[in-house]
Amino acid sequence: MIKEAIYHRPKNNFAYAYDKDTLHIILQTKKDDMDTVSLLFGDPYDWKNEQWQMETAAMVKSGSTAMHDYWFIAVKPEFRRMRYAFRCSDICETFVYTEGGIFVSPPSDIANYFCFPYLNKADVFTAPSWVKDTVWYQIFPERFGNGNPDLNPEGTLAWGSTDPSPTNFFGGDFQGVINHLDYLVKLGIGGIYFTPIFKAHSNHKYDTIDYMEIDPQFGDKETFRRLVEECHRRGIRVMLDAVFNHSGFYYAPFQDVLENQENSAYTDWFHIRDFPVVPGPKPNYDTFAFVGSMPKLNTENPEVKKYLLDVARYWVEEFDIDGWRLDVANEVDHAFWREFRQTVKDAKPDAYILGEIWHDSMPWLQGDQFDAVMNYPFTNGVIDYFAKNEMTAGDFADSITKVLHMYPSNVNEVAFNLLDSHDTPRIMTMASENRERVKLLYLFQLSFIGTPCLYYGDEIGMAGGQDPGCRACMEWDERKQDRDLFRYVQLLIDLRKSHPVFGNGGDFRFLYTDNEQNCIVYEKYDAANRLIFVLNNSEQSKQLLGEHVFKGNDGWNEWILVDNGSVDKQPVAELSTVDLPGYGFRIFEQR
Amino acid sequence: MIKEAIYHRPKNNFAYAYDKDTLHIILQTKKDDMDTVSLLFGDPYDWKNEQWQMETAAMVKSGSTAMHDYWFIAVKPEFRRMRYAFRCSDICETFVYTEGGIFVSPPSDIANYFCFPYLNKADVFTAPSWVKDTVWYQIFPERFGNGNPDLNPEGTLAWGSTDPSPTNFFGGDFQGVINHLDYLVKLGIGGIYFTPIFKAHSNHKYDTIDYMEIDPQFGDKETFRRLVEECHRRGIRVMLDAVFNHSGFYYAPFQDVLENQENSAYTDWFHIRDFPVVPGPKPNYDTFAFVGSMPKLNTENPEVKKYLLDVARYWVEEFDIDGWRLDVANEVDHAFWREFRQTVKDAKPDAYILGEIWHDSMPWLQGDQFDAVMNYPFTNGVIDYFAKNEMTAGDFADSITKVLHMYPSNVNEVAFNLLDSHDTPRIMTMASENRERVKLLYLFQLSFIGTPCLYYGDEIGMAGGQDPGCRACMEWDERKQDRDLFRYVQLLIDLRKSHPVFGNGGDFRFLYTDNEQNCIVYEKYDAANRLIFVLNNSEQSKQLLGEHVFKGNDGWNEWILVDNGSVDKQPVAELSTVDLPGYGFRIFEQR
Repeated sequence: MIKEAIYHRPKNNFAYAYDKDTLHIILQTKKDDMDTVSLLFGDPYDWKNEQWQMETAAMVKSGSTAMHDYWFIAVKPEFRRMRYAFRCSDICETFVYTEGGIFVSPPSDIANYFCFPYLNKADVFTAPSWVKDTVWYQIFPERFGNGNPDLNPEGTLAWGSTDPSPTNFFGGDFQGVINHLDYLVKLGIGGIYFTPIFKAHSNHKYDTIDYMEIDPQFGDKETFRRLVEECHRRGIRVMLDAVFNHSGFYYAPFQDVLENQENSAYTDWFHIRDFPVVPGPKPNYDTFAFVGSMPKLNTENPEVKKYLLDVARYWVEEFDIDGWRLDVANEVDHAFWREFRQTVKDAKPDAYILGEIWHDSMPWLQGDQFDAVMNYPFTNGVIDYFAKNEMTAGDFADSITKVLHMYPSNVNEVAFNLLDSHDTPRIMTMASENRERVKLLYLFQLSFIGTPCLYYGDEIGMAGGQDPGCRACMEWDERKQDRDLFRYVQLLIDLRKSHPVFGNGGDFRFLYTDNEQNCIVYEKYDAANRLIFVLNNSEQSKQLLGEHVFKGNDGWNEWILVDNGSVDKQPVAELSTVDLPGYGFRIFEQR
Repeated sequence: MIKEAIYHRPKNNFAYAYDKDTLHIILQTKKDDMDTVSLLFGDPYDWKNEQWQMETAAMVKSGSTAMHDYWFIAVKPEFRRMRYAFRCSDICETFVYTEGGIFVSPPSDIANYFCFPYLNKADVFTAPSWVKDTVWYQIFPERFGNGNPDLNPEGTLAWGSTDPSPTNFFGGDFQGVINHLDYLVKLGIGGIYFTPIFKAHSNHKYDTIDYMEIDPQFGDKETFRRLVEECHRRGIRVMLDAVFNHSGFYYAPFQDVLENQENSAYTDWFHIRDFPVVPGPKPNYDTFAFVGSMPKLNTENPEVKKYLLDVARYWVEEFDIDGWRLDVANEVDHAFWREFRQTVKDAKPDAYILGEIWHDSMPWLQGDQFDAVMNYPFTNGVIDYFAKNEMTAGDFADSITKVLHMYPSNVNEVAFNLLDSHDTPRIMTMASENRERVKLLYLFQLSFIGTPCLYYGDEIGMAGGQDPGCRACMEWDERKQDRDLFRYVQLLIDLRKSHPVFGNGGDFRFLYTDNEQNCIVYEKYDAANRLIFVLNNSEQSKQLLGEHVFKGNDGWNEWILVDNGSVDKQPVAELSTVDLPGYGFRIFEQR
């Protein structure tokens, strides 16, 4: 066995408190290197006759990639304390892997064992309970609906009359959202994520002028209050976008610095390298990227901190919003986010905190900062596989298995799984306008662990390239909408909410991948239920062997998704082969 | 190369901010698997012609164990942001290891690269600057000096008249410490760690009755204030022991629970499983270990939290203490310790926070909780090797190299490196009363990275087994002290403080280990200075080849430690062999 490839370290995705009673322990080993792995564990203080009292329990392989196997076990230590080690075996050899090194048999000195010293409830990662069951919908407010033309900014264009540009306006506003809330209810949406709504210069509003004011083109505070109320009345939560990494150019404190330079009272609100402060292509102050009009805020300055935390509290307390999405969250200090969490949770204990982070985010997901991050590692995998067909079935399964083992399960259950956004091309465009591929994307997203987000208009087949192309006006003319796609998405959302393992209730596992056929088989399951999904990601019809799908189990119903939004369940006799049309899929439920 | 054995993940010991400008990046690979490793890195926003601008820099092997090599580099990214990957090569193959997987050449999609998104000063692990240069001395107050017999508890025995028992008293007190402070100054001590001094029942005082009162056997608050002042006048810092995981049996809130049961106002101050609360061998409430007289405090209860944080603040603010050592720190919730840190640092920004944790402590050493932990992985290695001779030279070097790579460098520099304590046998006893071995222990401890701690009396050769044996009265009769050992320790402390690389100023590296000869060679060095230590851990005289020690470099002075507390420096001609008497050592300084 390759001992050097074994990895375990407590208090991250490898050993964590799943809930107030349960620890999850995971060991990473080289793929196919070991036949069995067992956990040796006990209470650190449980001794009899100078002998530490240790139990043994088998671990199960919860997933594999091309490189690694992951071995999993859930344990409920009676006194919430545990020392442990791993017994690893193949046919030739057995050894015990501990924090103190590798031994031929369990070492007698307990100091060698890994330690999860105490499962304290305060440290358990806990996202709001409603998030697990929420399907999100992202709205770019300038482009969803124009409900009050009186608010139109100067030069507003007729709705959808032309392509979106970096600078044009179509007059989207809060009333436009209110007018279409019932549409979202019909689709099955449980939460709206709004890109920024505060007073700003551009059409995207990421260049904040005043964090305490609504942008006048969207409405006033009373309209916003009504919007939140109308959402809540329909069971829809509201999440706003907090752009706290940097301000906009016209933010008063930054303008004050430009005007008064060294003498400004706000010099320490930013990271200024020297005076005079000169915006330009190589700004002499820290910025988002190298964008001089987006000066980075000094979130270590107590005044700035107080101001931003007041903002965070204000919109929760005064308008009852349900969550904050944090723009460029990874570039702001962890210390600030810890205080941010306390402030927000004090104001509303079940508010949701979602960070924008595009890479491995474990350091922000320890329970003290965010409830979730935008799950781009998931996004990258599904887009490369289903939309672009640039990845083999096996590599796709590896990437998804890796994502699932990168974070604790309770983190995965609330991961914000998006397919696209205002920052990427739309899925229809990434999928080369192939709507069958888009249907596979939705099937996978909506049957996966986490909390899925739809980007406005995708559900009716809107296309659009990289920003600004992806920011077109919502198409409200039903004749121009892909109503079939809408009903399909609607049905999947309904299944996610109604079936015990279609959504977050079920564990996820790949059963089979076939690079040549470009097909994947995965299952969602719990102790009582089992769904098997068979997807053909190629344009040719394909045939898989029944044994690769059903693994020898029998008693299956096949689900036929009917265009009227219902599911026909038909018993299937033992299938020796499973046929799939090009870009087709089949779903089987074990009886 | 064994790709499965490569490990890297940012924001722990593998990638961290060393200071406000510098990142340290480390890659772990299988031992001797790669010939070179380079860092590929750049600012995430630095693009020219759609091409990400990337630099390459060679990494150096900073250490090896039997299993792994560690590759190190320090980088100062101009804009404090970095994406990076590793190029790994042997003679047959080159590949690039990224967060997104392994590639044959650097991937063009920047999303694959590891990310250190921003080096924010607030997140840099920062211990008080004075700690690096401090040599600690641990005092068990009941046993250091009886300076005021009027305070003697009933039944106090004559000083040192008999062996210590779990229940006897010898009347040690604050005045006794004050009387001997000049002794500590002579030894070179910069900080005293006192085991608990608050009102308690036992002689060890770990069973607190009142956290706001001094135990009357030690003196009153005025005496304590005088003690702190007298220490400070001599440049000695004072650290107290915070036993916040559990209270003592006679702690008023717990007594209230025992008396009033369900009706007590303090039921939520503890973790009570059911009523009536019955102390006994299997208590029905959470405890330290299974000790019914040490009920675990509910540090998640806001009242308890407030009380303990008030305690933490009170002794800092009112008595100007310099640090807190946290008993059983690993079993208290992280959330509590984060608030504790804020409270203590608000009261005194350069106070030191030291956790008692016996195992891998990375989760507590991220900058938001502790400044250091008691470094038992270091202790276990040096005791097993030098004191007990139960480990080979190679395994010892592995264990120390592992310790050094387990945490960031700025954490290692303030690690609390103890050899023994009130919880273990004394080093003289662990070393089978062989004082030459004890001298090697001190040489290694005092020339190592970190902040060393001496347990009272060890420096004059006191022996004593496991508690209570290790808690004997300090021997003040100079005729019974090992004065030679005292002068030796005094000299090493002096060298640590006066020589640029003897202490924390120098990097540490093993140059050679020899299992058969049971000898080790290590060096401490910086750009301008180099010391080489050659230690023979066997009772036979040994001879090493000069090339193993000097690595072909010439121009050396040998240090001769003279018993009067000085160092003779003698030039040595090129040595083809280095001779060592049994348990002897030699120190060479490069000119």
